Formats: sequence, structure tokens, C-alpha cells
Amino acid sequence: MFSIRTDLAVEARELYKDGHAGEIPGVSIDEKEEDGIKVVKVSILNDEGAKAMGKPIGDYITIEAPDLRYRDIELEDKVAQKLADVIKEISNVNVNIKTLVIGLGNWNVTPDALGPKVIENIVVTRHLKELAPLQFGDNICSVSAMAPGVLGITGIETAEIVKSIVDKIKPDLVITIDALASRRIERLATTIQISNTGISPGSGIGNKRSAINMESLGVPVVAVGVPTVVDAATIANDAIDHLESTLIKNTTSNSPLYNVLKNMDKEDKYALIKEVLSPDENLIVTPKEIDLLIKNISSILSRGINLALQPNLTVDEMNQLVH
Amino acid sequence: MFSIRTDLAVEARELYKDGHAGEIPGVSIDEKEEDGIKVVKVSILNDEGAKAMGKPIGDYITIEAPDLRYRDIELEDKVAQKLADVIKEISNVNVNIKTLVIGLGNWNVTPDALGPKVIENIVVTRHLKELAPLQFGDNICSVSAMAPGVLGITGIETAEIVKSIVDKIKPDLVITIDALASRRIERLATTIQISNTGISPGSGIGNKRSAINMESLGVPVVAVGVPTVVDAATIANDAIDHLESTLIKNTTSNSPLYNVLKNMDKEDKYALIKEVLSPDENLIVTPKEIDLLIKNISSILSRGINLALQPNLTVDEMNQLVH
Amino acid sequence: MFSIRTDLAVEARELYKDGHAGEIPGVSIDEKEEDGIKVVKVSILNDEGAKAMGKPIGDYITIEAPDLRYRDIELEDKVAQKLADVIKEISNVNVNIKTLVIGLGNWNVTPDALGPKVIENIVVTRHLKELAPLQFGDNICSVSAMAPGVLGITGIETAEIVKSIVDKIKPDLVITIDALASRRIERLATTIQISNTGISPGSGIGNKRSAINMESLGVPVVAVGVPTVVDAATIANDAIDHLESTLIKNTTSNSPLYNVLKNMDKEDKYALIKEVLSPDENLIVTPKEIDLLIKNISSILSRGINLALQPNLTVDEMNQLVH
Amino acid sequence: MFSIRTDLAVEARELYKDGHAGEIPGVSIDEKEEDGIKVVKVSILNDEGAKAMGKPIGDYITIEAPDLRYRDIELEDKVAQKLADVIKEISNVNVNIKTLVIGLGNWNVTPDALGPKVIENIVVTRHLKELAPLQFGDNICSVSAMAPGVLGITGIETAEIVKSIVDKIKPDLVITIDALASRRIERLATTIQISNTGISPGSGIGNKRSAINMESLGVPVVAVGVPTVVDAATIANDAIDHLESTLIKNTTSNSPLYNVLKNMDKEDKYALIKEVLSPDENLIVTPKEIDLLIKNISSILSRGINLALQPNLTVDEMNQLVH
Repeated sequence: MFSIRTDLAVEARELYKDGHAGEIPGVSIDEKEEDGIKVVKVSILNDEGAKAMGKPIGDYITIEAPDLRYRDIELEDKVAQKLADVIKEISNVNVNIKTLVIGLGNWNVTPDALGPKVIENIVVTRHLKELAPLQFGDNICSVSAMAPGVLGITGIETAEIVKSIVDKIKPDLVITIDALASRRIERLATTIQISNTGISPGSGIGNKRSAINMESLGVPVVAVGVPTVVDAATIANDAIDHLESTLIKNTTSNSPLYNVLKNMDKEDKYALIKEVLSPDENLIVTPKEIDLLIKNISSILSRGINLALQPNLTVDEMNQLVH
Repeated sequence: MFSIRTDLAVEARELYKDGHAGEIPGVSIDEKEEDGIKVVKVSILNDEGAKAMGKPIGDYITIEAPDLRYRDIELEDKVAQKLADVIKEISNVNVNIKTLVIGLGNWNVTPDALGPKVIENIVVTRHLKELAPLQFGDNICSVSAMAPGVLGITGIETAEIVKSIVDKIKPDLVITIDALASRRIERLATTIQISNTGISPGSGIGNKRSAINMESLGVPVVAVGVPTVVDAATIANDAIDHLESTLIKNTTSNSPLYNVLKNMDKEDKYALIKEVLSPDENLIVTPKEIDLLIKNISSILSRGINLALQPNLTVDEMNQLVH
Repeated sequence: MFSIRTDLAVEARELYKDGHAGEIPGVSIDEKEEDGIKVVKVSILNDEGAKAMGKPIGDYITIEAPDLRYRDIELEDKVAQKLADVIKEISNVNVNIKTLVIGLGNWNVTPDALGPKVIENIVVTRHLKELAPLQFGDNICSVSAMAPGVLGITGIETAEIVKSIVDKIKPDLVITIDALASRRIERLATTIQISNTGISPGSGIGNKRSAINMESLGVPVVAVGVPTVVDAATIANDAIDHLESTLIKNTTSNSPLYNVLKNMDKEDKYALIKEVLSPDENLIVTPKEIDLLIKNISSILSRGINLALQPNLTVDEMNQLVH
Repeated sequence: MFSIRTDLAVEARELYKDGHAGEIPGVSIDEKEEDGIKVVKVSILNDEGAKAMGKPIGDYITIEAPDLRYRDIELEDKVAQKLADVIKEISNVNVNIKTLVIGLGNWNVTPDALGPKVIENIVVTRHLKELAPLQFGDNICSVSAMAPGVLGITGIETAEIVKSIVDKIKPDLVITIDALASRRIERLATTIQISNTGISPGSGIGNKRSAINMESLGVPVVAVGVPTVVDAATIANDAIDHLESTLIKNTTSNSPLYNVLKNMDKEDKYALIKEVLSPDENLIVTPKEIDLLIKNISSILSRGINLALQPNLTVDEMNQLVH
């Protein structure tokens, strides 16, 4: 059966609400908007909510700033600061813990390279604290960082690599960064989702992955993600939906047309979509300037994470520590 | 009005034939297939053909090799050789002429970077012939190469840059390489179009450009192009078309449904598509692995062009000359 | 004969003074230091000065900030501002003129890629002023930019390309950016030379180039350069010089040793150096972290040039205009 | 005390022989030359040899092909095949074992990026054998690959990362690839050293690293390395040595000069060298075209390793499997 592909909890909720009346049982919503930034917290409270949403129990906070599409340094600073605030709110971050930041995804595939790009600008300090504890002492948080690559590049499940590093260096917190799929073009590179559930199998725009979460690693995992693609099937589906509803609007409920359309089930639609798109393809839709958009949002992510993890450092000190 | 975006003459012909019976007036077609490579020559013979096709009078030869999607060195060699043959057939190439190869497009935008990538591996010899005529003498063809960038990067129309270089160094032939838009996913990075008409305004996946052709430059221009994207609007349109024809098939010609669908004109469809896609976006559809596909096809293009321009050099000699 | 390779006027002066008493005839010097930035203006006033210095008549202003080696945002801002001031002082820059910025050098060779890297972040506006004069009107300066590549990549002399573009778009000012050779390691990526003489044959770390100057182009040319390499021969020469002077210090002027050393002429030394270094090599000395140093200084150069050319734009507006 | 920096066993031997008569005790040498390729096997047989050489007991095989400096496809093929032969000779490679290939070094530092670059083209198959054992079955060797980065980038000792992956996926063989320092310019990117001793602390051009060897990992480690830099101090030292020996040759053994020179000890020379080079710098000497040379040699290394690990695959099959 065809289902709209999305990794965002806010969109899973929208999709649910399309077909149902009222809010989702077992899910609570909190929305705020300030300074052109909308923050939505979707909390999945119990198994009923998890089943309805197709996602594990936990908090999913979305920072949406559509104007990120246009360069605006002040807005970028605010979003980075908001990301830092959310990470601090949702995790056990403090200056005494050790954090491992993991940039998921494939650096050879433009829209999947977000995680590795963010890693490049994370302030890495674990070795400094260990090698020169007197000099770097209590002021900085121990941070290590890694882009483990993807299965096709290493031959090793990403989750296996992360698990083995975690077992070895024993961080208190893992933060993952990943490129996501959205159902809405306007969210690409302008929306950040932060959750305390980690990464579950099947998420992300790449191949299926094993879980990277509290259960598998034994430490809390904060997952930071940004949508960078929309599935081409989503666009085809949306086009068909629009035509359907237009036709339905223009006809009466007792006409044969109305009945044909109403009775066209999801299977038929999916078959149509598969005919439009070559069946074996992994087709994605992006704005033409996606390379630039990813560059900008990855810079915001690394700033936000650095702010969350290194509250005692100035921007200058961070710059000196970035490799 | 919505019109399917394509830069390929073979697709312009397909689109024409969708709505008309018989072959296009003023256009001749020649098709051959050998070794998994299909070669189609579309010749626009007169103004009538040019108008029907929306393209200038001239020859458009398409090399289609769908299996290029899978690495196959032997097929790649054959396609490179076929490209060389077509360039020789369609142009005045010989060892005594001076050729300027121009890689069009924006190197910062993955699917538009094809031209600049090809330029990187062109065997450039003009300076060698001029500086050491006795050593390199009559054996090599004088070739220069350049990737002029795009208007947004330089502030200068690409056509202006090319024109000023051509006026200065006076080549006998210009070969342009450009990324194109196709209407069919399966043609991405597997089809090469070679034409003797140069580049006309509005072609290519980038912004509108001024002409780069015999008329503007005063020398013959061979345009080599490979589709690297499909417009997202094309996918949406195809989805709607499929739904329409499915609905029509399932109804009788005297039903109201049939009439509604038959009477839905192109304007309505375009409005629908614009609703599905954000109106101000330049949305493209690509396979997820487009970075890799472009890398492979650009290597085939540079080999084919080198073979056409340097018939007296061995592969080893070419390698030594590639910077 | 061996001669120390340097593209910096301040170093040419140092070398002259090593062998001569007093200041160089026909050359005036002005030195200032402020905030950890030393600014030295070497003015070559007449043919006598030009001959002694091996450089054309004109002003050569050097901004030296050794602490750029360590990331320091405030210092970087000051150096960018100082660069803007010097460009404004030394040229005819104002909001009504048209400027063409040229990034010289080979983007495939790390220490030679400075110019092309700077170009990436120049605010390019020529097309905006031409296409939307009402919107962008009098507030912005018309700027175009280009990295023409090097002879080995294009087969065309860089000077030919620049000349043909200048003839076509007729700017009022050309600014070139180039990687230079220094004789002192500590100047690499920490010193900027700005001159109003343009580029003369043989300058730069690449191959010999034809002139890019007022005489060849017909418009003023400001050359901005940063040393990124020291010749390996310079290091070998310095080692030998140090040994010589140590030996001389440790002996008396009537000893045979003293005479051997005093009589060892430059030819002998050069032969020695050629034996140490393979004769056919183009060997360079750089700090291991040169990739990072070049990244930092190129960002300072683009900011400084943007500040000089676009005095009416805020940083945000510049960011929005950078492609 | 100053000591010439080299990671090559053949050079450690040369240095020893400079100061001593006869062969090194506890070290055996075997030299062959064929087709422009010289293969030297230095075997350190016991503790005495290990102490004299400053390297662990084991075999160090050097493949030297000076003509690699010039592109020559046939020679490149021969060197790749020779590398495959040496890996097979020196290790337990066969189709039934599992191999992990590790690309050491910093991808942001041109001459240190060799290891990561080689990894990009290793045929990775571990996941295919595990996910589709029937399809890929006994024909292919299980290979995984990884570029773990360096301490400054990850905050984690490279040896720690490798150890944790090895403990997790339990390969039968580890192959490391690393950029080395040589004392001779002409060996840069033209010499390959293969040893069965793994990597010991202090090797490589980067920072000191913990051991990656049989003892630390529990599996055999084959280390493949290519020199990409010469220390600037080596060049300075060589210059001084040449001057010394020239002066000594030109004087008589009872002159004061002779005595001064003979009595100048290594400490004095080191002090001189430190004066020539800034004391806190990590200065390296490379040919200007080092980026290109590293690109070529890394392609040879990946081909050689693929040939050794996948004897049953054709080149086409390998290409299809390279990501």
C-alpha cells in the first residue's frame, strides 16, 4: 500500500488528522511561535499514540523557520540558539557529561550528506580534556564526533559502528544528526526536528538502519534531523489527490463519477504512481539549489549543537578549537 | 500554459506525436540500434519543422544506452566511441582545426555541474602546439577548454564570456557540454544528445541564456548534452494524465465523468500542478544516486570528445596530457 | 645564479638591504603598526627604484598580522577592514564604477587555489544592476567576478582571457587575487600585499604569465596577493647561509677558513642547492595545515574586497547576494 | 638531537649505513628489479635489528617505481599487480577470510588524505555476503572499509576506534593505508611500503598514534604506506651536509677548517636548522603538483588492494560494486 513518506512527527500527525476527526489519542501537542520561528512539540505518551503515529514513545520538537530559505544572519542565530535550548531541554546535557555526536548519512550523496557536514564544524574536545585536563579542565564539555558512513560504503551497519564506539568510549549522551524525508517541499532545509527517542529502523532518507537509541546503546540518544528531500511518489500522490478532490467538488454526490472516485482505493492510486515513476527507482524531489540550502542549515546545526554542549566558550574560543 | 519541459529533440517529437497523427512535417527521423545502444537522428529540415518542434533547423542525434545506469566498462567504451563518431559526423573536426570546448553550467549545483566536470578531463593542447610546435606538431589537434560559470556566479552572461573568448582565440569549432532536462526519468545520465545547432535561449536546466551558436559566434557550434533532471511539474503532470486516462478507460463515452475529464483543459491541469508544487520553486526530480551517475557519464563524455579531437593519440598519451 | 624567490616588495627590499648600506634609491618606505597589524607601504618612485627592486613603479602596501595563524574573529574583522581601506586608498573605487574581480591560480593545486576560493564569496552584482536597475539602482556597485584557470587547464594564457573579458564588458577597475611566494615561512597566509601595478610576467607561484596591468588592459589593476608557499630552494639557501655565518663568526679573519667561506660565490651555493633538491622539481615548503590556513585567509580577502566594493550593503544583504 | 625523519625501512637502513660499515646486524636485505619496478625486502630478524632500525621485527617490502611521476597506464597496472602480489605474499589473504581495510589520516590535509582517498575505491562486500550469501557466496571475499579520521577531528584515538570496530566485527586481517614521510623527494608518491608489522606509535605524518598491530588488535595487520612529504628540516639538514662535505673536500685534513667542521656536532647542526625554520612549525616539502600525484597513487593502491582481496572478480564486477 502507498503511504506518504515522512520522518517528521508533525507530518505524521497531519496525515493522521487528514483521515480522522479530533486529536490523536495518546499524543499531546504544544505549539508556540515567536520571531518567525514556530516550535511544535509532539509528545507521544503511550503505546496507542505510538501505534497511531508509527513512531516510538517520546518527545519530538520541531523548529520551523520558513525564512531560512533566504539568508538572514539574525534569524540563523536565533534558530541556532533555539536548537541549543531544545537540546538542553530534552537531554541531560551539562558541562560534566561526555557527549558523542554522530553525523549519519552518505557524504557522496548531496541530500544525504547533512550529518557528515555538521560533524565538520563540531567543537571536539574529548582529547583535550584527557591530554591536558589542567588547561581545559572544568570549563569545557567532553565532546567527540564521528561520521560513520553508510552500509554501502563501509560494509558495516552504521548502528554496529556506533554501538562499538559507544561501548569503547562510554559517553553519557549521543546526539545523532541525519537528513530526513518530508512530505512538504517548503520544509526542506527550513525545519529541524529534535527528539529524545533516537533513530529507529527505517528512518532517514537512506537504506533501512538498525536502531540507534537508548535501548540499543544504553545511553540517551537525541536525534537531530532536517528534511532535505521529498519522495517523488509524494508529489505524484499529491497531484492525484488534488485532481480527485477537484473532480469531486465539481460533481454531485449521486453521480457515477463521484462513486468511481470515492471507490478508487489506495491500491489503485499506488499502482498509478508506480506507473508514472520507474518502479525500481529511488526518486527524490529537491529545489535546484539544494546544495546551498544544505550548506546553510548544516552551519546552523553545528552552531546550535556547539552552543548546547559548550556554554562556557566564546565564539572565538570555539573557532580556535574547530579543526 | 503548462508545457512539458524537455531539451531533447526525441522527446519534443514524442510530445508532438502524442497529440497528432503521423510524423511531424519538416522533420525526418532515422533510428538504429546496435549493441544495446540506440541512435536516433532527428533532422529538422525547414521552418515548419522548427516551429512544430520548438527548436532550430539542424540535426539532433541521440545516443541512448539505458544500461549505463549499471557500471559496465565495455558499454561505456562503446558509448564514448559512438559519441566520438557522431561528433566527427556532425562537425568539421579534423587534426588541422582549432577547437574550443565549453563546459556550461554551475559547478555548485550537483545536477548542473556536468559541463564543468567534463572540462576537467579534456585533453588541452592549444598552448603546447603554440609553445612547442616542433614537439607536438601536426600530430595533435589544438584544443582549449573552459567552464565559464553561470550568470549568478560571474555577473556576466555566459554567452558574452564565450563570445569574447572566441573573438580572441578564433577557434574553428566550438563544442559545448550542458546538463539538460528530460521528461523521462530513465533517460537521466543514460542519454546523450549531440546537435549541430548550438545552444539557443532558454535551453539547459539553468537560467535563460543567450544563444551560443553559429550566428552569434561565427563558427560552427556542436552542443553535447545529457539530461540530469526531470522537472517536478512533469512528474505531477504525468500522474494526473495517468489518472485521467485510467478514469476514462473505466467509463463510457456518454457518461458525465467522461465529459468532465475530456473537457478539463490544460489550464485547469496547470493550476492543479501549481497547487501541488510551491509556486516559486525550481523543483527537480532526480534519482538519489545522481552524484554518482553524473560522475560516470561525465567521464564517458570527456573520453568521447578526446577521441574525436585527438585521433592520433593513445590513451596513455592522453592521460599524460590531462592536467 | 640563485636568487631568493619572493613576490613581496617588502622582502625584495629586505634582500636589497642585506647586501647594501642605506635605503634603496628611488624607493620610499612608510611603516605603521596598530592593533597587532603592521602596514608597510613600499613606493617605487622611478626607474632606478624599479631596477633595484625588480618590480614596476607603483605602490605596494603590505598588511602583516602574524596572529592570523590562530583563529581570532576580531583580528580577522580588523584585517578585512584594513584591506578594504587600502583598496579604497590605492584605487578609484566608488559606487559608480564597474569592477571586475579576477581570481588567478589553479583550483586543483592547494596552495595556488587562493584566487578561485576568494571569487566564490565575492558579492556579484553586475547582472542585478543591468536586469533590475530600479531595484538595485544606485545603492550597489557593479561587480563581476571570474576565475579564469591557468594555461595548463585551459590552453589559453590567463592574460588573454582577462583581456578578452575586459574588452567585452569594459570595467573601470580590475582587482586580481593571487597566491604568492614568500621567503619567510611566518608570512604564509598572514600577510596581504596590495599594489596598484597589476600582475607582471613571472609573478605568482604558477607558471610565467603575461602582464595583467594598466598597460595591457587599459584600466587600473589592483593586485591583491597572499604568500602561500616558500620555495624549497629558499630553505636550503637559508640553511647554508646560517652555517656560513656561524662558521665565520667562529674563526678569525686571517684564517684560511674565513677566506674559503668569503670566496665561496653564489654560483657555488646554487650548485649545492641544486644537488640537495632534485633538479627538475618545483618543490615548495608549507605548514602541514596549509589547507586550513588558505581557507581562513581567503575568507578574509573576500570580506575585505566586498567591504571595499559595496560600502552601502549590510553584512546580511551581502550574504543574500552571495551565490 | 636532530634525526632525519623517515617512515621507510629502506631509508632507515640507508641512514644506518651512512654512519656504519657493513650491513646492519639482525637485518636481511633482498633486492629485485624488473620492468622499471624495484622491490626491496628489508627483514628485521631480531631485537638487535629492531633496535638498530628503530622499527619492530617483521618484513618491510618496498615497491619503487620512479616513473610513476609521469602518467603511464601500463606501469600503473604493473605496480597495482605487484602490490597485490606482495599483500598476498605477506599476509593470510584468501577468499574465506574477512578483511577490514582502514584508511588512516586526515582528509582535510592534502598530503595526509591518502588513506581516506584509497578507501573510497575499495570494493566493499561484507554486507553483500551477509545479506545475500547465496548470490555472492563463495566467490567474493568479505571486505569492510573505514576512514576513522584523526584525533583532532574525532576527539578519539584512531587506535581506539579501530580496536572497537575490530572487536565488534572480528575480521581475520586488517590492512591499513597511511601517508608517510620520506627523506627523499624522489620517493614521494612513487614508492609503496608494505609491512606485516602494522602501525607503531609515532609513525605516519600526523600526530603520534597508539599502535595498530597484532598485539593491540589480536589479528594480523598489514600496513601499506606511501611517502607524500619530506620534512623541511630534512631539506635544511641535507643542504648543510652538502656544504660541509664540499668544504671538507676542498681543504686538507690538518687545516683548522677541517677540524672546525669535523668537530661540529649534531647538536650544533640541529640548532642551526631550528634557526632557519620557525621553531613551532610543522613544515613539509612537497612537489607543487602533490594533489595530482596523490590522486594517481591512491588509485593504484585501491586497485592493488582490490586485486589482492577479490581474485575472483573481473574489473567490471569490481566497478559495479564500488559505491
